[in-house]
Amino acid sequence: MPSLSVGQYSLVFNMLSLAVAAMLGSFAFFVMSQKIIGAKYRISMIVSSLVVLIAGYHYYRIMGSWEHAFTLVNGAYVASGLPFNDAYRYVDWMLTVPLLLVELVLVLNLTKDSTGPMLKKLIIAAVLMIGLGYPGEISNDLMTRNVWGVLSTIPFLYILGVLWGQLGAQLANSSEKVKVLFTNIRYLLIATWGFYPIAYAIGTWGGTKSPEAVVAVQVGYTIADITAKALYGVMIFVIAYQKSKEDGSLPSMIEEKQLSR
Amino acid sequence: MPSLSVGQYSLVFNMLSLAVAAMLGSFAFFVMSQKIIGAKYRISMIVSSLVVLIAGYHYYRIMGSWEHAFTLVNGAYVASGLPFNDAYRYVDWMLTVPLLLVELVLVLNLTKDSTGPMLKKLIIAAVLMIGLGYPGEISNDLMTRNVWGVLSTIPFLYILGVLWGQLGAQLANSSEKVKVLFTNIRYLLIATWGFYPIAYAIGTWGGTKSPEAVVAVQVGYTIADITAKALYGVMIFVIAYQKSKEDGSLPSMIEEKQLSR
Repeated sequence: MPSLSVGQYSLVFNMLSLAVAAMLGSFAFFVMSQKIIGAKYRISMIVSSLVVLIAGYHYYRIMGSWEHAFTLVNGAYVASGLPFNDAYRYVDWMLTVPLLLVELVLVLNLTKDSTGPMLKKLIIAAVLMIGLGYPGEISNDLMTRNVWGVLSTIPFLYILGVLWGQLGAQLANSSEKVKVLFTNIRYLLIATWGFYPIAYAIGTWGGTKSPEAVVAVQVGYTIADITAKALYGVMIFVIAYQKSKEDGSLPSMIEEKQLSR
Repeated sequence: MPSLSVGQYSLVFNMLSLAVAAMLGSFAFFVMSQKIIGAKYRISMIVSSLVVLIAGYHYYRIMGSWEHAFTLVNGAYVASGLPFNDAYRYVDWMLTVPLLLVELVLVLNLTKDSTGPMLKKLIIAAVLMIGLGYPGEISNDLMTRNVWGVLSTIPFLYILGVLWGQLGAQLANSSEKVKVLFTNIRYLLIATWGFYPIAYAIGTWGGTKSPEAVVAVQVGYTIADITAKALYGVMIFVIAYQKSKEDGSLPSMIEEKQLSR
């Protein structure tokens, strides 16, 4: 690791801590929000809560690894000799990225016949996408990074194809509000997931070990993770809430019906 | 950091620990209290619980940072050389202050049409208020602190304007009891939120690094946070309970109705 100024070191550390807090808070929200939506949408909130719980654990570990990788010497943070463990991120993505696709498909509550095969294809593509990126991420060789980066992009494009094609077609019968919410969440997904290859490219083209590149990659990954997991889960909640309202399964609506009897 | 007497160091440390205990206890209360109010008010208790969970995490971290920033030498606490991380507070406020406004608007259970746009404006103003304060907080230059302090006050005044104007007008149809409760919580909000700029000014005018200023700012922020988050959440609960009672949706009232059938 390169030497960092106090400002650079603290920026990354505070972003990592922000991620822990955001994952912890959103975990509690996704657990409790299950009580205020219809029963058949609760599974998507369960899956959302798993994603941020796993991510919260990993961010807690990354924060510790970041702390141990540096020592404060004469007003600057120099490498302590202990390695900064970047693999936490890949382990996290391997578990959480397939789950993010699962929650999106489940909240739409499609017919059982189309849900199963679609989930299978999306999960396999997500695992391939993460797995193929890793050999490039840990390499310092420009050519190696490019080859694995391109290979990893193929399943990413396949996932986008499914979300816009096959899954989009299933929404024909949804209300206008649900269609708008679904369009928004797909754009959020593209914007946040699209950030990962950019951070990967920063690591490739800007030189992987300059202080600015290290800080930019860590801050970028952290913002992308908070958006793609916590904010994305809140958007899934909004879709679940809207669909519950439309089919009358909101607990508050059921209660109101009981009260007026 | 300046050198502190044992009394000064311990006062701050024990206040931080009090905050951890208060946030932890109120988190458990806000989670469990959802079962004794009407279904449509539960969302406000969910949001209250997130606020104190996130704040509890940050106070736990601040307590650790305070411990590591000092070493006990010859009966006095002198700076250890490790920085005291003040950014935890700003990261916390960035997440929790918008949520405090969300819980206040949600507990009133207004029509959906007016809730959405009002929340959007309040959240943006809250983020601006915190974001504009931070550059001043970390600066030791008097002029810089004043400029950012004034900028940060503008969205604060805007928020007060919305709470007293637009939101107050929505309450015309509420019962007298709810109006009184809502008036009280707005005064609590002004009194506690108004404390932050005072602590900010103490840091600016009294010199940021005298032992007395450091202790006053930490103790002041801690009291303000406990009041503005835990006590405020309890007041939100009282409003939710009163409104549930008025519309007959208290679970105990529903139970009684079922028993007498």
